[in-house]
Amino acid sequence: MPLDPTLFGEIDPPQRLLMGPGPVNAHPRVLRAMSADLLGQFDPEMTGYMNQVMALYRPIFGTANRWTMLIDGTARAAIEASLVSLVAPGDRVLVVNFGRFGLLLTEILSRIGAVIETVDAPWGETVPMEAIAAAIERTAPKLVACVHGDTSTTMAQPLDGLGDLCRAAGALSYVDATATIGGMEIAADRWGVDIVTGGLQKCLGGPSGSAPITISDAAAEHIFARRHTEAGIRMAGLEDGAGPRIGSNYFDLAMIMDYWSEKRLNHHTEATSMLYAARECARIVLGEGLDARYARHAAAGRAMTAGLRAMGLTVFGADATRMTNVTGVHIPHGVDGEAIRRMMREAFEIEIGTAFGPLAGQIWRIGAMGYNAMRHKVLLTLGALEACLLREGFALPPGKAVAAAMEAWG
Amino acid sequence: MPLDPTLFGEIDPPQRLLMGPGPVNAHPRVLRAMSADLLGQFDPEMTGYMNQVMALYRPIFGTANRWTMLIDGTARAAIEASLVSLVAPGDRVLVVNFGRFGLLLTEILSRIGAVIETVDAPWGETVPMEAIAAAIERTAPKLVACVHGDTSTTMAQPLDGLGDLCRAAGALSYVDATATIGGMEIAADRWGVDIVTGGLQKCLGGPSGSAPITISDAAAEHIFARRHTEAGIRMAGLEDGAGPRIGSNYFDLAMIMDYWSEKRLNHHTEATSMLYAARECARIVLGEGLDARYARHAAAGRAMTAGLRAMGLTVFGADATRMTNVTGVHIPHGVDGEAIRRMMREAFEIEIGTAFGPLAGQIWRIGAMGYNAMRHKVLLTLGALEACLLREGFALPPGKAVAAAMEAWG
Repeated sequence: MPLDPTLFGEIDPPQRLLMGPGPVNAHPRVLRAMSADLLGQFDPEMTGYMNQVMALYRPIFGTANRWTMLIDGTARAAIEASLVSLVAPGDRVLVVNFGRFGLLLTEILSRIGAVIETVDAPWGETVPMEAIAAAIERTAPKLVACVHGDTSTTMAQPLDGLGDLCRAAGALSYVDATATIGGMEIAADRWGVDIVTGGLQKCLGGPSGSAPITISDAAAEHIFARRHTEAGIRMAGLEDGAGPRIGSNYFDLAMIMDYWSEKRLNHHTEATSMLYAARECARIVLGEGLDARYARHAAAGRAMTAGLRAMGLTVFGADATRMTNVTGVHIPHGVDGEAIRRMMREAFEIEIGTAFGPLAGQIWRIGAMGYNAMRHKVLLTLGALEACLLREGFALPPGKAVAAAMEAWG
Repeated sequence: MPLDPTLFGEIDPPQRLLMGPGPVNAHPRVLRAMSADLLGQFDPEMTGYMNQVMALYRPIFGTANRWTMLIDGTARAAIEASLVSLVAPGDRVLVVNFGRFGLLLTEILSRIGAVIETVDAPWGETVPMEAIAAAIERTAPKLVACVHGDTSTTMAQPLDGLGDLCRAAGALSYVDATATIGGMEIAADRWGVDIVTGGLQKCLGGPSGSAPITISDAAAEHIFARRHTEAGIRMAGLEDGAGPRIGSNYFDLAMIMDYWSEKRLNHHTEATSMLYAARECARIVLGEGLDARYARHAAAGRAMTAGLRAMGLTVFGADATRMTNVTGVHIPHGVDGEAIRRMMREAFEIEIGTAFGPLAGQIWRIGAMGYNAMRHKVLLTLGALEACLLREGFALPPGKAVAAAMEAWG
């Protein structure tokens, strides 16, 4: 029976605790910031807010890059904008692949017409820097593309030294930090990488729909060499470059940088409410302090892991490279993973995550990100999971999980 | 001097009346809806809201199309998604071009690698249907692409009969209704066109960042024939098509439709707050009633035009095809257009629009869209403009504009 639009009432979602791999609950300050009214896109207050956003995201990305701004779309919009603006058809790209989001990079690149090489790790591990170095040597790529934290496997790829390897080989570098930004350290300048992108909906504690990006001067120069401004809006100082035109208009970083520069080239109409959200996310992050925030996420990850293990469950993947903000845990033999997730949601209003591909049905993914990387939320989640497992008949030592987590939080 | 992030305070934009060509002020109900907390993207309440959005936008698009949903990005994201999903490199496309946004269609299409033909009208006019028919006959396109209301010229292209012409020629059809949806009638089914897209930030009275789209069954079939699901998330029932792969992942309408279907393919993370906004925009539109809403915009356009003429100003473009929701008016000889705009903003907190390309410096564009298509806002704008023009020394008959507008509103 078709839905009758006249019957739909006020927006009224359940008050659910989102402890999956993201999206998570937004910080209430972010939701309130979005209720500010709109501005004309070239009003001085609006361009002032845009400049503030640029300044706010530089420390969060660990960079002094001038070109630090927002892409109007979800996290994957910024991934595609980066790749389509850096890579021309026929360019060779090396993808560091250790999970679903590494595969996503290859998928996007194949549509761009790149020649794709990969250096892989099994799901649950990361790629040793020596293997990356050897692959760069072997493939001589124009770009090396890598995920920082891949929520599909809960692994975080160590990135110190990547930029040096790439620059020595004459390659540019791209890092997808969607799942770690605001929760684990992003050190674009120390890593020496050229473009890093994120999203609001995980450790930044905002809604999906705006994607922070930072671009090095070297990458910006490469991109501006591909500048082809729209015929309808050409202006002085925006000479077209000699490089191949970027294959997308919406994701053309040259035009987007010109929009965020004092040139204020008309491109899209900035998603103002999402910009307000991104600004408030960043103010909250910097107000807490980056080190304190990373420590809080680390404590949450420690506590979650300790609690799960105290229940007798097996945590997934390599300890040394596990993301702090999402934990994979094996679904015990004989337990119906989806029945537990349903009971968690229906009895406790808590969401935990399922898994993709080879891990589907094998693990749950339990996050503690942004506004939800808090001790009481970790404890409530563990207590609820214990109750659900007991009710499903799984034998575990009752009462241990929460105690172990409190201990591990420190 | 670099901006110091620690100094940025609470979000606090000025309370400005946005009477330009968009974005405009959002309806307060829309801003409030965005402050609802987030949901997991496959939670039953979230997918329920997605289904409601599909139902809500069908009457707004004037369609029974199953595939009626949102693209996560600004209005131009939906334009690019439509074109990249319908058009393969080498396909011939006919663009109906009568302003900057027709040029934008050619710009996006040229990046896709389409062979582009145009049928043009001078800025300030629209293209006669007979000229479109002749151009279809001459060029035998696979797709005809057209803007409905082009804010750059304030003209609205009549579209009745377009679909019949296209179908008779075996062509698909696309219409960009960004600037008219929610303010002028959109009749996707009566026009017989295949894809129509919009944006929230004009007559729908919401923020930029979410773009409604409707897709006919014929277009959906064409697009599904190009389906190539990501390697990481393939599932039963999603067989790849034989057609050429769509050149973008983010804008791949086949995957986006699979995400909005009961298959719930994982693609992007839906921009939840923007979906709440889009839902509330639609509830407001349908609650007012489509006919009443279109009549209100028509009254606002009539009143604005009458008021401007009563001041002795010359309205731009053909009367018969003028958009109801934005009015172009010639900047009088000897008047500094930017000085007037600045005075309007600084003394009255009212924004009116500048212009692009051949009309830059020639006309102002004054909108009355969505929540701002109200009698008092039209009158306040006219009164303020009169005061600014008098202060700049322009000779006009004082007190006539507001009276003429009140009369014309009816």
